[in-house]
Amino acid sequence: MDNKVDERVRDYQRVILGVDPGTNVMGYGILGVNGKKPSLIAMGVIKLNKFECHYMRLKRIYDRILEICNQYLPDEMAIEAPFFGKNVQSMLKLGRAQGVAMAAALSREVPITEYEPRKIKMAITGNGASSKEQVQEMLRRILSIPRENLLPELDATDALAAALCHFYESEKPVVAKSTSWKDYIAKNPDKIKK
Amino acid sequence: MDNKVDERVRDYQRVILGVDPGTNVMGYGILGVNGKKPSLIAMGVIKLNKFECHYMRLKRIYDRILEICNQYLPDEMAIEAPFFGKNVQSMLKLGRAQGVAMAAALSREVPITEYEPRKIKMAITGNGASSKEQVQEMLRRILSIPRENLLPELDATDALAAALCHFYESEKPVVAKSTSWKDYIAKNPDKIKK
Repeated sequence: MDNKVDERVRDYQRVILGVDPGTNVMGYGILGVNGKKPSLIAMGVIKLNKFECHYMRLKRIYDRILEICNQYLPDEMAIEAPFFGKNVQSMLKLGRAQGVAMAAALSREVPITEYEPRKIKMAITGNGASSKEQVQEMLRRILSIPRENLLPELDATDALAAALCHFYESEKPVVAKSTSWKDYIAKNPDKIKK
Repeated sequence: MDNKVDERVRDYQRVILGVDPGTNVMGYGILGVNGKKPSLIAMGVIKLNKFECHYMRLKRIYDRILEICNQYLPDEMAIEAPFFGKNVQSMLKLGRAQGVAMAAALSREVPITEYEPRKIKMAITGNGASSKEQVQEMLRRILSIPRENLLPELDATDALAAALCHFYESEKPVVAKSTSWKDYIAKNPDKIKK
Protein backbone atom coordinates (compact mmCIF):
# COMPACT_ATOMS: atom_id res chain seq x y z
CA MET A 1 0.00 0.00 0.00
CA ASP A 2 1.34 3.43 -0.94
CA ASN A 3 1.26 5.41 2.30
CA LYS A 4 3.40 8.37 1.25
CA VAL A 5 1.72 11.71 1.90
CA ASP A 6 1.29 13.88 -1.20
CA GLU A 7 3.23 17.01 -0.13
CA ARG A 8 0.84 19.32 -2.02
CA VAL A 9 -1.80 18.88 0.71
CA ARG A 10 0.48 20.78 3.12
CA ASP A 11 -0.23 23.96 1.12
CA TYR A 12 -3.92 23.94 2.04
CA GLN A 13 -5.85 24.87 5.17
CA ARG A 14 -8.45 22.23 4.45
CA VAL A 15 -8.63 19.13 2.26
CA ILE A 16 -11.97 17.65 1.17
CA LEU A 17 -12.29 14.16 -0.32
CA GLY A 18 -15.26 13.67 -2.63
CA VAL A 19 -16.41 10.15 -3.44
CA ASP A 20 -18.93 8.87 -5.99
CA PRO A 21 -19.30 5.18 -5.14
CA GLY A 22 -20.57 2.84 -7.78
CA THR A 23 -20.41 -0.90 -8.11
CA ASN A 24 -18.56 -0.78 -11.46
CA VAL A 25 -16.53 2.41 -11.20
CA MET A 26 -15.88 4.55 -8.16
CA GLY A 27 -14.80 8.14 -8.64
CA TYR A 28 -12.82 10.29 -6.23
CA GLY A 29 -11.68 13.89 -6.17
CA ILE A 30 -9.46 15.82 -3.76
CA LEU A 31 -10.11 19.49 -3.22
CA GLY A 32 -7.72 21.81 -1.38
CA VAL A 33 -9.12 24.97 0.22
CA ASN A 34 -7.33 28.15 1.22
CA GLY A 35 -9.60 30.83 2.63
CA LYS A 36 -12.53 30.92 0.24
CA LYS A 37 -10.66 29.47 -2.74
CA PRO A 38 -11.07 25.80 -3.66
CA SER A 39 -8.44 24.13 -5.91
CA LEU A 40 -8.15 20.72 -7.50
CA ILE A 41 -5.42 18.56 -5.98
CA ALA A 42 -6.20 15.24 -7.62
CA MET A 43 -8.99 13.12 -9.08
CA GLY A 44 -9.33 9.62 -10.42
CA VAL A 45 -11.40 6.49 -10.73
CA ILE A 46 -11.23 3.05 -9.19
CA LYS A 47 -12.19 0.54 -11.86
CA LEU A 48 -14.02 -2.40 -10.38
CA ASN A 49 -15.43 -4.25 -13.37
CA LYS A 50 -12.18 -6.13 -13.88
CA PHE A 51 -12.96 -8.05 -10.68
CA GLU A 52 -15.63 -10.66 -11.13
CA CYS A 53 -15.84 -11.39 -7.43
CA HIS A 54 -18.12 -9.03 -5.52
CA TYR A 55 -15.90 -9.18 -2.40
CA MET A 56 -12.78 -8.35 -4.38
CA ARG A 57 -14.57 -5.23 -5.60
CA LEU A 58 -15.49 -4.25 -2.06
CA LYS A 59 -11.94 -4.93 -0.85
CA ARG A 60 -10.56 -2.80 -3.70
CA ILE A 61 -12.79 0.13 -2.74
CA TYR A 62 -11.79 -0.19 0.92
CA ASP A 63 -8.05 -0.45 0.19
CA ARG A 64 -8.08 2.40 -2.30
CA ILE A 65 -10.03 4.82 -0.08
CA LEU A 66 -7.65 3.97 2.76
CA GLU A 67 -4.68 4.71 0.48
CA ILE A 68 -6.28 7.99 -0.59
CA CYS A 69 -6.81 8.94 3.08
CA ASN A 70 -3.16 8.17 3.84
CA GLN A 71 -1.96 10.04 0.76
CA TYR A 72 -4.09 13.20 0.96
CA LEU A 73 -5.00 13.36 4.67
CA PRO A 74 -8.54 14.67 4.02
CA ASP A 75 -10.25 16.62 6.82
CA GLU A 76 -13.70 15.66 5.58
CA MET A 77 -15.35 13.29 3.14
CA ALA A 78 -18.34 14.17 0.97
CA ILE A 79 -20.17 11.29 -0.65
CA GLU A 80 -22.68 11.29 -3.49
CA ALA A 81 -25.52 9.16 -2.17
CA PRO A 82 -28.68 8.55 -4.17
CA PHE A 83 -31.58 7.76 -1.88
CA PHE A 84 -33.75 6.27 -4.56
CA GLY A 85 -32.69 3.46 -6.82
CA LYS A 86 -34.03 1.18 -9.45
CA ASN A 87 -34.64 -1.83 -7.25
CA VAL A 88 -33.81 -3.36 -3.86
CA GLN A 89 -31.03 -5.55 -5.29
CA SER A 90 -29.10 -2.66 -6.80
CA MET A 91 -29.63 -0.57 -3.65
CA LEU A 92 -28.20 -3.36 -1.50
CA LYS A 93 -25.10 -3.51 -3.71
CA LEU A 94 -24.77 0.25 -3.74
CA GLY A 95 -25.17 0.30 0.05
CA ARG A 96 -22.33 -2.20 0.39
CA ALA A 97 -20.05 -0.13 -1.85
CA GLN A 98 -20.90 2.99 0.17
CA GLY A 99 -20.43 1.02 3.40
CA VAL A 100 -16.87 -0.11 2.66
CA ALA A 101 -15.92 3.40 1.46
CA MET A 102 -17.39 4.84 4.66
CA ALA A 103 -15.62 2.21 6.80
CA ALA A 104 -12.27 3.26 5.33
CA ALA A 105 -12.93 6.95 6.08
CA LEU A 106 -14.35 6.21 9.55
CA SER A 107 -11.33 4.07 10.42
CA ARG A 108 -9.25 7.23 9.80
CA GLU A 109 -11.71 9.35 11.83
CA VAL A 110 -12.67 11.36 8.74
CA PRO A 111 -16.20 12.79 9.20
CA ILE A 112 -18.66 12.02 6.39
CA THR A 113 -21.42 14.11 4.86
CA GLU A 114 -23.66 12.75 2.13
CA TYR A 115 -25.39 14.65 -0.64
CA GLU A 116 -28.09 13.63 -3.06
CA PRO A 117 -27.05 13.83 -6.74
CA ARG A 118 -29.68 16.52 -7.38
CA LYS A 119 -28.33 18.69 -4.58
CA ILE A 120 -24.77 18.39 -5.91
CA LYS A 121 -25.80 19.34 -9.44
CA MET A 122 -27.78 22.26 -8.09
CA ALA A 123 -24.77 23.50 -6.11
CA ILE A 124 -22.41 23.30 -9.12
CA THR A 125 -24.53 24.32 -12.11
CA GLY A 126 -27.59 25.88 -10.48
CA ASN A 127 -29.74 23.17 -12.05
CA GLY A 128 -30.55 19.91 -10.27
CA ALA A 129 -31.23 18.17 -13.56
CA SER A 130 -27.90 18.96 -15.27
CA SER A 131 -26.11 16.26 -17.23
CA LYS A 132 -22.81 14.83 -16.01
CA GLU A 133 -21.11 16.63 -18.92
CA GLN A 134 -22.54 19.99 -17.83
CA VAL A 135 -21.31 19.35 -14.27
CA GLN A 136 -17.85 18.50 -15.61
CA GLU A 137 -17.71 21.61 -17.80
CA MET A 138 -18.76 23.87 -14.91
CA LEU A 139 -16.17 22.29 -12.59
CA ARG A 140 -13.51 22.76 -15.27
CA ARG A 141 -14.24 26.48 -15.31
CA ILE A 142 -14.62 26.97 -11.54
CA LEU A 143 -11.43 25.09 -10.71
CA SER A 144 -9.51 26.15 -13.90
CA ILE A 145 -8.79 22.54 -14.86
CA PRO A 146 -6.93 22.25 -18.19
CA ARG A 147 -9.08 20.29 -20.67
CA GLU A 148 -6.31 17.70 -21.13
CA ASN A 149 -6.40 16.85 -17.42
CA LEU A 150 -10.03 15.68 -17.57
CA LEU A 151 -10.56 11.93 -17.40
CA PRO A 152 -12.79 10.08 -19.88
CA GLU A 153 -14.76 8.70 -16.91
CA LEU A 154 -17.26 11.24 -15.62
CA ASP A 155 -17.26 9.53 -12.21
CA ALA A 156 -14.10 11.48 -11.28
CA THR A 157 -15.70 14.90 -11.86
CA ASP A 158 -18.90 13.65 -10.18
CA ALA A 159 -16.86 12.91 -7.07
CA LEU A 160 -15.10 16.26 -7.30
CA ALA A 161 -18.51 17.91 -7.59
CA ALA A 162 -19.53 16.28 -4.28
CA ALA A 163 -16.41 17.74 -2.63
CA LEU A 164 -17.10 21.21 -4.08
CA CYS A 165 -20.78 21.03 -3.06
CA HIS A 166 -19.63 20.20 0.48
CA PHE A 167 -17.30 23.20 0.44
CA TYR A 168 -20.10 25.53 -0.70
CA GLU A 169 -22.46 24.12 1.94
CA SER A 170 -19.91 24.67 4.71
CA GLU A 171 -19.38 28.26 3.56
CA LYS A 172 -23.07 29.15 3.79
CA PRO A 173 -23.81 31.62 6.57
CA VAL A 174 -25.54 29.95 9.49
CA VAL A 175 -29.10 31.25 9.63
CA ALA A 176 -30.35 31.81 13.16
CA LYS A 177 -33.10 29.34 14.03
CA SER A 178 -36.58 30.53 14.98
CA THR A 179 -36.54 31.76 18.57
CA SER A 180 -40.21 32.33 19.27
CA TRP A 181 -41.53 32.18 22.82
CA LYS A 182 -43.51 29.09 21.87
CA ASP A 183 -40.28 27.29 20.93
CA TYR A 184 -38.56 28.53 24.06
CA ILE A 185 -41.33 27.25 26.29
CA ALA A 186 -41.42 23.93 24.49
CA LYS A 187 -37.67 23.48 25.06
CA ASN A 188 -37.68 24.75 28.65
CA PRO A 189 -40.86 23.50 30.31
CA ASP A 190 -39.30 23.98 33.78
CA LYS A 191 -39.20 27.76 33.26
CA ILE A 192 -42.98 28.00 33.39
CA LYS A 193 -44.33 29.21 36.72
CA LYS A 194 -47.23 26.99 37.65
CA MET B 1 -9.50 -1.49 21.27
CA ASP B 2 -9.17 -4.89 22.96
CA ASN B 3 -6.73 -6.83 20.80
CA LYS B 4 -6.00 -9.73 23.14
CA VAL B 5 -6.51 -13.12 21.51
CA ASP B 6 -9.02 -15.35 23.30
CA GLU B 7 -6.84 -18.38 24.09
CA ARG B 8 -9.75 -20.80 23.60
CA VAL B 9 -9.48 -20.43 19.81
CA ARG B 10 -6.10 -22.21 19.94
CA ASP B 11 -7.95 -25.44 20.79
CA TYR B 12 -9.72 -25.55 17.43
CA GLN B 13 -8.65 -26.50 13.91
CA ARG B 14 -11.01 -23.97 12.42
CA VAL B 15 -12.86 -20.91 13.68
CA ILE B 16 -15.95 -19.57 11.89
CA LEU B 17 -17.40 -16.13 12.59
CA GLY B 18 -21.11 -15.78 11.90
CA VAL B 19 -22.61 -12.32 11.52
CA ASP B 20 -26.23 -11.17 11.31
CA PRO B 21 -25.98 -7.49 10.41
CA GLY B 22 -28.89 -5.25 11.16
CA THR B 23 -29.16 -1.51 11.45
CA ASN B 24 -30.44 -1.61 15.04
CA VAL B 25 -28.76 -4.71 16.46
CA MET B 26 -25.98 -6.79 14.95
CA GLY B 27 -25.49 -10.35 16.15
CA TYR B 28 -22.30 -12.38 16.06
CA GLY B 29 -21.36 -15.92 16.93
CA ILE B 30 -18.01 -17.72 17.01
CA LEU B 31 -17.92 -21.41 16.22
CA GLY B 32 -14.88 -23.62 16.84
CA VAL B 33 -14.51 -26.79 14.79
CA ASN B 34 -12.45 -29.88 15.51
CA GLY B 35 -12.80 -32.63 12.93
CA LYS B 36 -16.54 -32.87 12.34
CA LYS B 37 -17.56 -31.40 15.69
CA PRO B 38 -18.67 -27.77 15.92
CA SER B 39 -18.66 -26.03 19.34
CA LEU B 40 -19.77 -22.64 20.57
CA ILE B 41 -16.90 -20.35 21.55
CA ALA B 42 -18.77 -17.08 22.00
CA MET B 43 -21.77 -15.08 20.87
CA GLY B 44 -23.12 -11.63 21.44
CA VAL B 45 -24.85 -8.59 20.06
CA ILE B 46 -23.71 -5.12 19.09
CA LYS B 47 -26.43 -2.69 20.10
CA LEU B 48 -26.66 0.18 17.69
CA ASN B 49 -29.89 1.94 18.61
CA LYS B 50 -28.18 3.93 21.34
CA PHE B 51 -26.37 5.86 18.60
CA GLU B 52 -28.58 8.37 16.88
CA CYS B 53 -25.99 9.15 14.23
CA HIS B 54 -26.00 6.74 11.30
CA TYR B 55 -22.21 7.02 10.87
CA MET B 56 -21.58 6.29 14.54
CA ARG B 57 -23.56 3.08 14.08
CA LEU B 58 -21.49 2.12 11.05
CA LYS B 59 -18.27 2.94 12.87
CA ARG B 60 -19.39 0.83 15.84
CA ILE B 61 -20.05 -2.17 13.57
CA TYR B 62 -16.66 -1.75 11.88
CA ASP B 63 -14.73 -1.36 15.15
CA ARG B 64 -16.51 -4.25 16.85
CA ILE B 65 -16.05 -6.71 13.95
CA LEU B 66 -12.38 -5.73 13.83
CA GLU B 67 -12.08 -6.38 17.57
CA ILE B 68 -13.83 -9.74 17.15
CA CYS B 69 -11.41 -10.66 14.32
CA ASN B 70 -8.44 -9.74 16.54
CA GLN B 71 -9.87 -11.62 19.50
CA TYR B 72 -11.02 -14.85 17.84
CA LEU B 73 -8.86 -14.99 14.69
CA PRO B 74 -11.65 -16.44 12.51
CA ASP B 75 -10.62 -18.39 9.40
CA GLU B 76 -13.88 -17.58 7.64
CA MET B 77 -16.88 -15.31 7.98
CA ALA B 78 -20.46 -16.33 7.21
CA ILE B 79 -22.98 -13.56 6.88
CA GLU B 80 -26.77 -13.69 6.90
CA ALA B 81 -27.75 -11.66 3.86
CA PRO B 82 -31.37 -11.19 2.84
CA PHE B 83 -31.63 -10.50 -0.87
CA PHE B 84 -35.12 -9.12 -0.73
CA GLY B 85 -36.20 -6.31 1.52
CA LYS B 86 -39.13 -4.11 2.23
CA ASN B 87 -38.00 -1.10 0.26
CA VAL B 88 -34.99 0.52 -1.42
CA GLN B 89 -34.29 2.79 1.58
CA SER B 90 -34.02 -0.06 4.07
CA MET B 91 -31.95 -2.11 1.62
CA LEU B 92 -29.49 0.76 1.20
CA LYS B 93 -29.11 1.01 4.99
CA LEU B 94 -28.75 -2.76 5.31
CA GLY B 95 -26.19 -2.76 2.49
CA ARG B 96 -24.15 -0.15 4.34
CA ALA B 97 -24.22 -2.17 7.58
CA GLN B 98 -23.17 -5.28 5.64
CA GLY B 99 -20.51 -3.26 3.81
CA VAL B 100 -18.75 -2.01 6.93
CA ALA B 101 -18.88 -5.48 8.51
CA MET B 102 -17.40 -6.93 5.30
CA ALA B 103 -14.74 -4.21 5.15
CA ALA B 104 -13.56 -5.15 8.65
CA ALA B 105 -13.30 -8.85 7.73
CA LEU B 106 -11.70 -8.11 4.34
CA SER B 107 -9.11 -5.84 5.98
CA ARG B 108 -8.08 -8.93 8.01
CA GLU B 109 -8.11 -11.11 4.85
CA VAL B 110 -10.99 -13.19 6.23
CA PRO B 111 -12.94 -14.74 3.32
CA ILE B 112 -16.69 -14.12 3.33
CA THR B 113 -19.61 -16.33 2.33
CA GLU B 114 -23.18 -15.11 2.44
CA TYR B 115 -26.32 -17.10 3.04
CA GLU B 116 -29.96 -16.23 2.60
CA PRO B 117 -32.00 -16.43 5.83
CA ARG B 118 -34.13 -19.24 4.34
CA LYS B 119 -31.08 -21.31 3.52
CA ILE B 120 -29.70 -20.89 7.06
CA LYS B 121 -32.99 -21.93 8.66
CA MET B 122 -33.20 -24.91 6.32
CA ALA B 123 -29.67 -26.01 7.29
CA ILE B 124 -30.35 -25.77 11.04
CA THR B 125 -33.96 -26.92 11.47
CA GLY B 126 -34.71 -28.55 8.12
CA ASN B 127 -37.42 -25.95 7.52
CA GLY B 128 -36.74 -22.71 5.66
CA ALA B 129 -39.73 -21.05 7.32
CA SER B 130 -38.75 -21.73 10.96
CA SER B 131 -39.12 -19.00 13.54
CA LYS B 132 -36.06 -17.41 15.18
CA GLU B 133 -37.06 -19.19 18.42
CA GLN B 134 -37.07 -22.59 16.69
CA VAL B 135 -33.62 -21.86 15.23
CA GLN B 136 -32.36 -20.90 18.68
CA GLU B 137 -33.78 -24.04 20.31
CA MET B 138 -32.24 -26.28 17.64
CA LEU B 139 -28.85 -24.58 18.00
CA ARG B 140 -29.06 -24.98 21.78
CA ARG B 141 -29.45 -28.73 21.32
CA ILE B 142 -26.86 -29.18 18.54
CA LEU B 143 -24.18 -27.17 20.35
CA SER B 144 -25.27 -28.18 23.90
CA ILE B 145 -25.64 -24.58 25.02
CA PRO B 146 -26.90 -24.26 28.61
CA ARG B 147 -30.23 -22.42 28.63
CA GLU B 148 -28.86 -19.73 30.97
CA ASN B 149 -26.17 -18.85 28.41
CA LEU B 150 -28.73 -17.80 25.79
CA LEU B 151 -29.11 -14.08 25.21
CA PRO B 152 -32.49 -12.36 25.14
CA GLU B 153 -31.62 -11.01 21.68
CA LEU B 154 -32.22 -13.64 19.01
CA ASP B 155 -29.74 -11.87 16.71
CA ALA B 156 -26.88 -13.68 18.48
CA THR B 157 -28.25 -17.16 17.74
CA ASP B 158 -29.18 -16.01 14.22
CA ALA B 159 -25.52 -15.15 13.66
CA LEU B 160 -24.40 -18.44 15.18
CA ALA B 161 -26.83 -20.21 12.85
CA ALA B 162 -25.09 -18.56 9.86
CA ALA B 163 -21.74 -19.90 11.11
CA LEU B 164 -23.14 -23.40 11.61
CA CYS B 165 -24.84 -23.34 8.20
CA HIS B 166 -21.47 -22.43 6.68
CA PHE B 167 -19.83 -25.33 8.50
CA TYR B 168 -22.46 -27.79 7.20
CA GLU B 169 -22.11 -26.44 3.66
CA SER B 170 -18.33 -26.84 3.72
CA GLU B 171 -18.71 -30.43 4.96
CA LYS B 172 -20.96 -31.43 2.07
CA PRO B 173 -19.32 -33.91 -0.31
CA VAL B 174 -18.40 -32.25 -3.58
CA VAL B 175 -20.69 -33.66 -6.26
CA ALA B 176 -18.93 -34.25 -9.56
CA LYS B 177 -20.29 -31.95 -12.24
CA SER B 178 -21.94 -33.31 -15.38
CA THR B 179 -19.27 -34.69 -17.69
CA SER B 180 -21.23 -35.45 -20.83
CA TRP B 181 -19.49 -35.49 -24.21
CA LYS B 182 -21.54 -32.48 -25.19
CA ASP B 183 -20.09 -30.49 -22.28
CA TYR B 184 -16.60 -31.76 -23.02
CA ILE B 185 -16.80 -30.67 -26.65
CA ALA B 186 -18.22 -27.30 -25.68
CA LYS B 187 -15.31 -26.71 -23.30
CA ASN B 188 -12.62 -28.09 -25.64
CA PRO B 189 -13.51 -27.06 -29.17
CA ASP B 190 -9.89 -27.57 -30.31
CA LYS B 191 -10.19 -31.34 -29.68
CA ILE B 192 -12.64 -31.74 -32.56
CA LYS B 193 -11.02 -33.07 -35.70
CA LYS B 194 -12.32 -31.05 -38.59
